[in-house]
Amino acid sequence: MVKSTIKLFYTGAVVFVLLIFFIDREILPESVRLLGKGTAEYNDQTIYGITSTYARLTQKADLTRLIYTLMHVPNFHWILIEDSVEKTPLVRRLLQKSGLKYTHLNKKNKKNSHHKSGVKDLLTRNAALAWVRNNVTQGVVYFMDDDNTYDLKLFEEMRTTKVASVWPVGLVGGLVVEGPVRCKNGKVLTWRVTWETNRTIPIDMAGFAINTALLRQHPDVKFVDAFDLESIFLGDLGLTRDKMEAKGNNCREVNVWHTQTAKANLYQEKVAQQLGDEYNPIIET
Amino acid sequence: MVKSTIKLFYTGAVVFVLLIFFIDREILPESVRLLGKGTAEYNDQTIYGITSTYARLTQKADLTRLIYTLMHVPNFHWILIEDSVEKTPLVRRLLQKSGLKYTHLNKKNKKNSHHKSGVKDLLTRNAALAWVRNNVTQGVVYFMDDDNTYDLKLFEEMRTTKVASVWPVGLVGGLVVEGPVRCKNGKVLTWRVTWETNRTIPIDMAGFAINTALLRQHPDVKFVDAFDLESIFLGDLGLTRDKMEAKGNNCREVNVWHTQTAKANLYQEKVAQQLGDEYNPIIET
Repeated sequence: MVKSTIKLFYTGAVVFVLLIFFIDREILPESVRLLGKGTAEYNDQTIYGITSTYARLTQKADLTRLIYTLMHVPNFHWILIEDSVEKTPLVRRLLQKSGLKYTHLNKKNKKNSHHKSGVKDLLTRNAALAWVRNNVTQGVVYFMDDDNTYDLKLFEEMRTTKVASVWPVGLVGGLVVEGPVRCKNGKVLTWRVTWETNRTIPIDMAGFAINTALLRQHPDVKFVDAFDLESIFLGDLGLTRDKMEAKGNNCREVNVWHTQTAKANLYQEKVAQQLGDEYNPIIET
Repeated sequence: MVKSTIKLFYTGAVVFVLLIFFIDREILPESVRLLGKGTAEYNDQTIYGITSTYARLTQKADLTRLIYTLMHVPNFHWILIEDSVEKTPLVRRLLQKSGLKYTHLNKKNKKNSHHKSGVKDLLTRNAALAWVRNNVTQGVVYFMDDDNTYDLKLFEEMRTTKVASVWPVGLVGGLVVEGPVRCKNGKVLTWRVTWETNRTIPIDMAGFAINTALLRQHPDVKFVDAFDLESIFLGDLGLTRDKMEAKGNNCREVNVWHTQTAKANLYQEKVAQQLGDEYNPIIET
């Protein structure tokens, strides 16, 4: 009776191990196995959100709103980098008040060749990457615009990123949904894109996350001054389309939208300013 | 010993009552005293936020983001009214998932005479007011756009509204800040406005809150089809500029911004839709 129970136990254990081995081969990309990690290790990883921000009329509002979303995300570390020559008191106060775990950086972006106004946030993003490489041993990196909209589910899904993950993004690239839209067993079958469809990995900045281990394996890879900077960055990290871990409930859900805050139109501000000091006290906005 | 203690107690009580009486006369407007309430009663009032919403590309994103702000507000009841002939599954799901205390209503707005596209949200706001009059015995009413930005401090300040309160609003009326900007002892000294400066109470919809008791005192007052609908509404409720309780740290802080989400530009959507079914699965956005 005891012997047969022990035999049953060992048989079960062997079947279990073989099962895990084959499931692993089936659904995980090669690069995951190369990193040699088990799934359980990824369930409580810290997410490092990298956000570039710059002074403008709607900045305080946009950051305030984003902070209220981030306050709901457990194990989150916000790397907020100001596109400025100095850190500003406005941003410093917002961060201190937020109660978030954060790192406050600054770096002045430069205009560059590929865009009328420069490829957005090139130097700030690379400075934040350098900070991550120098300070983080384990986690997931995600690039976040300060006026995008994030569903909390997105963070819980990206948290299990083993190497690099990808998901659909709403309202970007002239489309309602862009990126992976049909996925199976964690692999992307169909990419919905209309711009430069032959890119290595055709995805917007809001549509992927990477494990910091990958950044450390490729210590020199950073964003370059090109329109398809996301795809080049991911390619330089050794990624291909079928190495990307598909999230978003197998790409059936949009959990991030590339919303943009309309520029404030202050057509009456000059008139108000001429009313005199009494009407124009210093109020931080 | 016992007698002198009792005497001291009575003297203290009389001084206290007189003190409260004079403080009350000093800082509270007449209308507050007419309602006959003490300050303490207002500290934990429920805030009834009334929000009109309509189907559009950025609706789910805007509501998602607003929900994450509202989740941080204690004693809050959201009256979300859809501008539609029927309630939509998208909004219903968002509300259910939110965990907020809410009432889900719907009412189709009509175009009206005073604006190319109609005075915004006229019928939905009045339908929500009717719901409040029928269902709420005590609380504060605040009208909230679904794409505005709210600092949590705003709710804590408006919660103590005795009759009607007012505060500065950011990025509205063509101005960085509009509404009261210099206040003292809870009274407004200076109104910063450039449009129709002679309005009874020159304030945007996002800049005031009213106690439900006032709504019940004036059971027939509702929004009318006019450009200055806020001011007419407040005037019809018997309010004047000096009856408004000034909030916003005596009008020195902006805690609400009239942000607007840019319309999504889907210039590539037609191209994507021609790619066929595989590229166009049904994904709620």
